[in-house]
Amino acid sequence: MAGETEIRELTVELGERSYPIRIGTGLLERAGSLFEECGFPKKSPILLVADESVVGLYAGKLERSLKDAGYSVATAVVPSGEQSKSLAQFNDLITEALEAGLDRRSTVVALGGGVVGDLAGFVAAAYMRGVRFVQVPTTILAHDSSVGGKVAVNHKLAKNIIGAFHQPEFVLYDLNTLKSLPPREIRSGFAEVVKHGLIWDAEFTSWCDRNSDKLLALDDEALGHALYEGCRVKSIVVSRDERENDLRAILNLGHTIGHALEAVGSYNQLLHGEAISIGMVGAARLAAKFGYGEELASETERLLRKFELPVRIPAGYDTDAIMSAMQHDKKFTEGAMVFVVPKRIGEVEIRGDVQAAWVRDIVEQLKGETG
Amino acid sequence: MAGETEIRELTVELGERSYPIRIGTGLLERAGSLFEECGFPKKSPILLVADESVVGLYAGKLERSLKDAGYSVATAVVPSGEQSKSLAQFNDLITEALEAGLDRRSTVVALGGGVVGDLAGFVAAAYMRGVRFVQVPTTILAHDSSVGGKVAVNHKLAKNIIGAFHQPEFVLYDLNTLKSLPPREIRSGFAEVVKHGLIWDAEFTSWCDRNSDKLLALDDEALGHALYEGCRVKSIVVSRDERENDLRAILNLGHTIGHALEAVGSYNQLLHGEAISIGMVGAARLAAKFGYGEELASETERLLRKFELPVRIPAGYDTDAIMSAMQHDKKFTEGAMVFVVPKRIGEVEIRGDVQAAWVRDIVEQLKGETG
Ligand SMILES: NC(=O)c1ccc[n+]([C@@H]2O[C@H](COP(=O)([O-])OP(=O)(O)OC[C@H]3O[C@@H](n4cnc5c(N)ncnc54)[C@H](O)[C@@H]3O)[C@@H](O)[C@H]2O)c1
Ligand SMILES: NC(=O)c1ccc[n+]([C@@H]2O[C@H](COP(=O)([O-])OP(=O)(O)OC[C@H]3O[C@@H](n4cnc5c(N)ncnc54)[C@H](O)[C@@H]3O)[C@@H](O)[C@H]2O)c1
Ligand SMILES: [Zn+2]
Ligand SMILES: [Zn+2]
Repeated sequence: MAGETEIRELTVELGERSYPIRIGTGLLERAGSLFEECGFPKKSPILLVADESVVGLYAGKLERSLKDAGYSVATAVVPSGEQSKSLAQFNDLITEALEAGLDRRSTVVALGGGVVGDLAGFVAAAYMRGVRFVQVPTTILAHDSSVGGKVAVNHKLAKNIIGAFHQPEFVLYDLNTLKSLPPREIRSGFAEVVKHGLIWDAEFTSWCDRNSDKLLALDDEALGHALYEGCRVKSIVVSRDERENDLRAILNLGHTIGHALEAVGSYNQLLHGEAISIGMVGAARLAAKFGYGEELASETERLLRKFELPVRIPAGYDTDAIMSAMQHDKKFTEGAMVFVVPKRIGEVEIRGDVQAAWVRDIVEQLKGETG
Repeated sequence: MAGETEIRELTVELGERSYPIRIGTGLLERAGSLFEECGFPKKSPILLVADESVVGLYAGKLERSLKDAGYSVATAVVPSGEQSKSLAQFNDLITEALEAGLDRRSTVVALGGGVVGDLAGFVAAAYMRGVRFVQVPTTILAHDSSVGGKVAVNHKLAKNIIGAFHQPEFVLYDLNTLKSLPPREIRSGFAEVVKHGLIWDAEFTSWCDRNSDKLLALDDEALGHALYEGCRVKSIVVSRDERENDLRAILNLGHTIGHALEAVGSYNQLLHGEAISIGMVGAARLAAKFGYGEELASETERLLRKFELPVRIPAGYDTDAIMSAMQHDKKFTEGAMVFVVPKRIGEVEIRGDVQAAWVRDIVEQLKGETG
């Protein structure tokens, strides 16, 4: 049996929609009793939606635990990759839910990374106008996507444009599932962990800096702490602004440039974490325009390099294409150019007065310099 | 110009999601100033979703009023009929919204009956995880569907199975638009008006009884009163139980049998109001099983006949098919057979102890007797 570490628990405070996040090893095996504790009714079938890369490895454990507790479970497999976040895949899952007899008291469980979490979450949000939802994230990046209730699928013209706010009943983060992640996915996931430090917590940022080796080696104890702290920052922000009226936008640090890079690379060159890593360096350089410390950019860059993340725009990316992808990003409300800009490590602000020319300069720099 | 009647207004009380319903003549022409009063931002484009049967008659007036007030409006036309409540049509409208540049502060406006209201409402619920929504109902039945925030599309295996609760910002009910309704749609719409009387208000029920002729002739004054009272009952019920945990289920009077009849008729034989008219007679006959007055059934039947609505199951409907369609209805939570049963005119109760054999008997009666 894999080493047993402490189970860490925290609560996303959202009034009557509050929910716990549990992080530790061996949690899949205990899912059944958690469902019982939460009072999920046994007569209502559960739909388990699993990424095809993880279904063979972990779905069996989860199913067994649920069935042993007396639940009936139907499992639907979703092809790996961003293209599964589509209305077609959504419709197929609704068919599976109907065929499995899911009723208003049923639960949809997502087992996988952000793709399966976002997709299954939208199924849970829309099936019979909303049923229970449980997140069982299996990537490091999904410490971010599984918390906060944003669920969505893509449209051919825009990512995440069709969705809902639908909070899970709980998040079950079994560290054992992360062991099978490809190294590149591991590094990409840490970009969001680092982001949570940079926007909110200087102490945690410096802890990440000191523990990067342990983290990259997936040391259970370090990993548990990092995911706990990442989830904690995310949940504080979401608690204060569930529907992104103001504060929640700080979670987009690095995402304005990052999303543009993903789009220009047709979503198959840079991983999400890699793109926002470059984006965070860009945002840190923007800080200097507002008179914040020059060393912010070099510090940010040094930290991301420790996680073996890219900090320069790869060759072949066209500046005009990047700039125009940014104009289409939905974060530009009413045409104003809005950016999350760091003030110091652990603190950011949302600025609506960012000039496109500055951004273009920085994009050019990040292309020109050798990484 | 069509006769100007008093504008009736009522509020659906839902805390910060409360909204007004305005009923009267000549309201389309005033839409622009209402949008302004509500503070809808002028920079954010509006998507007007119109039923193809009404677009030529009324969309121009609405567009002009909005444009005169300084709004930019894109109009999308939806084919008439239930088959438009599909994910395919939903996806097309998302495309139109993106192409028209709708942002997070934009509004989706539904101009049509329940089909367009439900479809455009789900677009508003899901586009960018939710934008503003305005209902401009053009059928009598839509006094029901435009209030209460239930929005949905159909799946090939089940009606209304994909949806959300998404309340409108307001409902604008222009009586002038009802003048072009086909007579059969008029009668069908009054079935839901009568239903609102039967479940909540004996006095209003008796008023309907006395004014059926004026109503069928679409007399503005009588129509305004009937739609006001229908909306009032609906909004009281929705205010007390927005998400159908308990009370809201009383709105399903006549719908258990009604939905089964619609399904068995492949949704192209009976109109919704016609089906629930028969269903309400069935529910009233069930009342006798619980010791409530025998005259309830004959009274209900007499009233519905005054609105020229069907009160018997047409020839060719198979009892087994009706019974099995009822078992699939999502209102049968966990296999129990739940029915809304009238106690007296103006009061109903939700009973979970209805035996299938009773229902089967009543279905047989409603088939056997000559209407
Ligand atoms: N909802 C939100 O708030 C939010 C936040 C951030 C990102 N996202 C979304 O999350 C998605 C990205 O998430 P992701 O990075 O987890 O991507 P992902 O779900 O595609 O997973 C990455 C890859 O790892 C594989 N995989 C997953 N778990 C594995 C495991 N345990 N072992 C081996 N392989 C495994 C997957 O098959 C996939 O190929 C994007 O669609 C993004 O839009 C959403
Ligand atoms: N959301 C809810 O709470 C709720 C409640 C009840 C019904 N519904 C839904 O409403 C739908 C039925 O609504 P409906 O009866 O309004 O049907 P509808 O929208 O199909 O309209 C009926 C017919 O009248 C035509 N029409 C509409 N307005 C017209 C006008 N002013 N002049 C001439 N023709 C006009 C339409 O093209 C259509 O052919 C169903 O899909 C049902 O599921 C929803
Ligand atoms: Zn991200
Ligand atoms: Zn109805």
